[in-house]
Amino acid sequence: MCRKYGFIAPRSGIATEADEAAGLAARLGFPVALKVVSPDILHKTDVGGVELGCGSEQEVKAAFARITENVRRKAPDARVEGVSVEEMVREGVEVILGLTRDQQFGPVLMFGLGGVFTELLHDVSFRTLPVSAVDARAMIREIEGRPLLEGYRGQPPVSEEMLVDLLMKASRMGMDLGDRLESVDLNPIVVWGDQHRVLDAKVLLQPEDRVVPVAQPNSSHLEGFFSARSVAVVGASSTWGKVGNSVLDSLVNHEYRGRVYPVNPTKTEIMGQKCYPNLSAIPEPVDLVAVTVALSVVPDILRECAAKGIHNVVIHSGGGKELGGESLELEATIKRVARESDVRIVGCNCIGVYDSETKLDTLFQVHERMVRPKNGPIAILTQSGTVGAAVAESLADVGVCKFVSYGNRIDVDEADLISYLAEDPSTRVIACYVEGLAEGQKFLAAARRVAPRKPIVVFKSGRSQRAARASMSHTGFFGGSYGVAAGAFQQAGIIPVDSCEELAAVARALAMQPRARGSRLAMISNGAGTMVQAMDLMEGTHLTMPPLTPETVSRLKEVYPPFYLAQNPVDVTGSANSADYEVGIEALMEDPNVDIVMPWFVFQDTALDERIVEVLAKASEQYDKPILCGSMGGPYTDGISQTIQGRGVPMYHTVREWVAAAKGIAPRQ
Amino acid sequence: MCRKYGFIAPRSGIATEADEAAGLAARLGFPVALKVVSPDILHKTDVGGVELGCGSEQEVKAAFARITENVRRKAPDARVEGVSVEEMVREGVEVILGLTRDQQFGPVLMFGLGGVFTELLHDVSFRTLPVSAVDARAMIREIEGRPLLEGYRGQPPVSEEMLVDLLMKASRMGMDLGDRLESVDLNPIVVWGDQHRVLDAKVLLQPEDRVVPVAQPNSSHLEGFFSARSVAVVGASSTWGKVGNSVLDSLVNHEYRGRVYPVNPTKTEIMGQKCYPNLSAIPEPVDLVAVTVALSVVPDILRECAAKGIHNVVIHSGGGKELGGESLELEATIKRVARESDVRIVGCNCIGVYDSETKLDTLFQVHERMVRPKNGPIAILTQSGTVGAAVAESLADVGVCKFVSYGNRIDVDEADLISYLAEDPSTRVIACYVEGLAEGQKFLAAARRVAPRKPIVVFKSGRSQRAARASMSHTGFFGGSYGVAAGAFQQAGIIPVDSCEELAAVARALAMQPRARGSRLAMISNGAGTMVQAMDLMEGTHLTMPPLTPETVSRLKEVYPPFYLAQNPVDVTGSANSADYEVGIEALMEDPNVDIVMPWFVFQDTALDERIVEVLAKASEQYDKPILCGSMGGPYTDGISQTIQGRGVPMYHTVREWVAAAKGIAPRQ
Repeated sequence: MCRKYGFIAPRSGIATEADEAAGLAARLGFPVALKVVSPDILHKTDVGGVELGCGSEQEVKAAFARITENVRRKAPDARVEGVSVEEMVREGVEVILGLTRDQQFGPVLMFGLGGVFTELLHDVSFRTLPVSAVDARAMIREIEGRPLLEGYRGQPPVSEEMLVDLLMKASRMGMDLGDRLESVDLNPIVVWGDQHRVLDAKVLLQPEDRVVPVAQPNSSHLEGFFSARSVAVVGASSTWGKVGNSVLDSLVNHEYRGRVYPVNPTKTEIMGQKCYPNLSAIPEPVDLVAVTVALSVVPDILRECAAKGIHNVVIHSGGGKELGGESLELEATIKRVARESDVRIVGCNCIGVYDSETKLDTLFQVHERMVRPKNGPIAILTQSGTVGAAVAESLADVGVCKFVSYGNRIDVDEADLISYLAEDPSTRVIACYVEGLAEGQKFLAAARRVAPRKPIVVFKSGRSQRAARASMSHTGFFGGSYGVAAGAFQQAGIIPVDSCEELAAVARALAMQPRARGSRLAMISNGAGTMVQAMDLMEGTHLTMPPLTPETVSRLKEVYPPFYLAQNPVDVTGSANSADYEVGIEALMEDPNVDIVMPWFVFQDTALDERIVEVLAKASEQYDKPILCGSMGGPYTDGISQTIQGRGVPMYHTVREWVAAAKGIAPRQ
Repeated sequence: MCRKYGFIAPRSGIATEADEAAGLAARLGFPVALKVVSPDILHKTDVGGVELGCGSEQEVKAAFARITENVRRKAPDARVEGVSVEEMVREGVEVILGLTRDQQFGPVLMFGLGGVFTELLHDVSFRTLPVSAVDARAMIREIEGRPLLEGYRGQPPVSEEMLVDLLMKASRMGMDLGDRLESVDLNPIVVWGDQHRVLDAKVLLQPEDRVVPVAQPNSSHLEGFFSARSVAVVGASSTWGKVGNSVLDSLVNHEYRGRVYPVNPTKTEIMGQKCYPNLSAIPEPVDLVAVTVALSVVPDILRECAAKGIHNVVIHSGGGKELGGESLELEATIKRVARESDVRIVGCNCIGVYDSETKLDTLFQVHERMVRPKNGPIAILTQSGTVGAAVAESLADVGVCKFVSYGNRIDVDEADLISYLAEDPSTRVIACYVEGLAEGQKFLAAARRVAPRKPIVVFKSGRSQRAARASMSHTGFFGGSYGVAAGAFQQAGIIPVDSCEELAAVARALAMQPRARGSRLAMISNGAGTMVQAMDLMEGTHLTMPPLTPETVSRLKEVYPPFYLAQNPVDVTGSANSADYEVGIEALMEDPNVDIVMPWFVFQDTALDERIVEVLAKASEQYDKPILCGSMGGPYTDGISQTIQGRGVPMYHTVREWVAAAKGIAPRQ
């Protein structure tokens, strides 16, 4: 089967005479191995039936003779069909290709160097199928051991085109196998120059009739979660601290202007709102139901919803599949009834939904505890409500238009929401926190469609072996599931980040600044230390730090005193005032070598005057290049930083976030 | 020379007869190689003078005969001295040992696996000489490829004892070579079981008479920088924003109670203080001089100091060796004159010194711009003044007793200060930011002496190839200078961190909590997301997450509702109140499996009441185990976090800092 896709095994032929063997060898290319072919000889070596490394026709003939003689002597009764003449693979580099079906992301291709690189160092790269030539090239360049392919120790380099072609062949094979694919292991493949030979291949297939369903994003009725004009809270409570109390508080006592109906059979009124014994008792139409009661009664609630024509339910209650056992079944039942009732569910086990335009607010965090972000271009989707809440609070000043905590995603998931947000005019940036994806292929499909129009930033935790163990194929542990996720994210055009802080940092940059045209950055600061730290963090990323053009250098040198350093990074020392920064920032903005301008400020330095606020606001308005600022310190630094951010210029307070923001807005290729 | 230290090359002997060769081979062990020995034969193979892989006495005899016959036939005139019988090294693992003289840290030992591991992946470990058995073991365990030594693919493991012994041999060799050591390269060494053979060795020595001076820490007169009762400011200025104005402001207009003398020949009074034309004109004694004028006049100032019996000078002015050229010489002159005058210098190119007890404050950051930390147990030493200032501000609430920005360290350096702080009763924790060490051996010597009594936390930036390129030996780039620094820091007992935030995080933990007895941590939270993230960050560190004892588990299960997870990490869900945390924290504090207790709080969750402040304060007081807390959010979270920190319990706002704090207070071994 592998041959069908153009994979080449070591070539061979069978000869019955010495001359024929020599001719065959000449056609295959030297050196060759000769091996007796006989159904009666199990251990060829034991009877002298193998000769390796025959380097000429002469040697082949002699070897043929020796084998014939040996076998005649040691196994006189064996039926001999001939002698196989086999191409011996020259010295090359061993690589591995693997196809497997990842639990989250479906069929994936793996590439790595053979032996210790894969087995011991897990130095492999992944992409989901189908793999494009661009993907394949990236997979090859991603692995740490790639210098081995580029002409290590004076060896001629291995053709990247040939490798790309191998990866594409494997991808095609995987696509053709479709749902039958269990795993394919081409291991090792020896490569040299523009040649390859597959030394071993293992293919595991599933029965013909298997169908692996891939769900499609479904954004029907999602609008209702953000624009409902009336909300019923099932489980509304008058006890402080109860979820049913906090949700009601968020809806009743703040800016939401729709109707709110507490539902609780034991009360007649809560927070000044008339209370109803059940949904059906509410005389008016209801757009959205918030459920804070036990999951076991949810199926009945859903049927009531269907009867009342309600299409949107947020289930805050926990007690779902995170507990295993019966709860798993219960969630499945809820899912089925929801489908039957044409009801969409957000949750269960979530903190709710918030829309900063309609002020529809079902979060069970009371306002005193959690600041609701102002209206703005960022949408936050989060598997963990509390992690998402913290990210939302940290972006309160930039603005969050929509916040969805989807928890156990019985129904609505990231993919549905991303598809919905693609058409939402308020959303310009999508920030997403996930721990694991239930339907990775659906997620990728949605992201791939939306990412070219709206940036999607994802922090995926649960990466470690401990938190999410994943193994692949026979070769053991292959880098864990995050390797697969990282590859899949890159394919889909997702911007990956490594912490909540970075998620907020990149979302902030994307909300406040244009995306960068390239990944070449320039720094300028009155304190060099943080620039040194940034250079350390840039190592191994796609960010680069080009030299400034000679024009920029002379422009700076003309104005700056001799002890300022007019190079990249620009060091304007503790003596710098806002005019010095102004000159520097303008020069960097206008330097064609620079895609991202990154000023860091030591606001503690007394020489730096507050006109810097205007300088930055002007630069940010005037140029179409992103500017990302940084500073660290106490109250004065915080104050002026907030003023600057208020003018549309992002300001980071750790070097890590500053660099992460640059990584996030710079294109990967 | 290598033999003298017990390194073994492949063994061999010369035989003149077949029987002798066979006997020799039997003693060496099979297989062996036979090679003709003749001063007249250059290419032994060409004359059939080499036979490899002789596996028995019989084969040796036959090979001996063939060689003799071949040589007789093909080189009849050659003088033949015999046939050398050489041990052939079995299949084993290639390792590398290297000795070199690092620019910062002096003689170092490097260990790595051969081939691609070292050359391509830079998977090597370093320690400074002499290397102890503990160091050697750590070096072996640090490298990523170590599974190759532990019995990879069914191979028998390589003896760690033997490897440790090899490293110790190399260390002894390096120590004996002393100042003559340039580099030693034992590459490759093949190891298997408890055996080794050095296949190649290169030794480069310096001339006999080279002496590499190693400076000793010198803390004489340092007291004066912190307790001076009178300060003269040379270059005092009445212009806002000038360094000479800000320093005077810090001394005159705040809490410093000593005498302050502005020195400026063009003024009679500044800030209400009588001004003097020069130091000599000051009629009273002066303890400390702050210099904000050009470096060129410093030698004269130092002579004035000597005349007035002044031993302490802080030089704020830049323009030193950071500019290269003549400035380098000027710094050397200043250094010489300072030694001659018995004057200690902090700086140049620094922001000054601050003591929170005496309030002696020569920082040129005015108080409005930079908060002065309250008095407390942390001393901050920083090469970059502005980076240090930000760290100091972030520790303002914990307390910083002494802050020293030493800049270009013309004289006083980290090592001098660490030695001084060792005896300082106010200092319990030393936090240090360095970009590069001028005298690494001096620094390590000081740290090694002090670290067992007072923890020393170091953030060293300037790690990347770009920022600090370092190469070693002939094998190319060997992991860069931070590899050497990391090894040296570990040997010296320094706690290494990776960012300013982590420097502050670990210093905070050490200041507020006891050190951990082990590295086993337990987490508890009402929001599981951050615990998942922490588990990801723990991967590859020395931190572990043990199961709780059965006693702890049943203790928790008795009290908790069934949907709380009574395991490590403990998940108390969004329903948790302070009583739930109290039960959990006490159980973890009393669990013998746990060394560090790490609660994370979602303060946004309404169920969590404010009695948590008392719960944490009590736990921190009552138990001798460190407790490290975390939370993320907005103003409410910040407020309650500050209250909790005020009660002596550290609270971190990023998962990274939370985990870093645990790493910092947990012992490495």
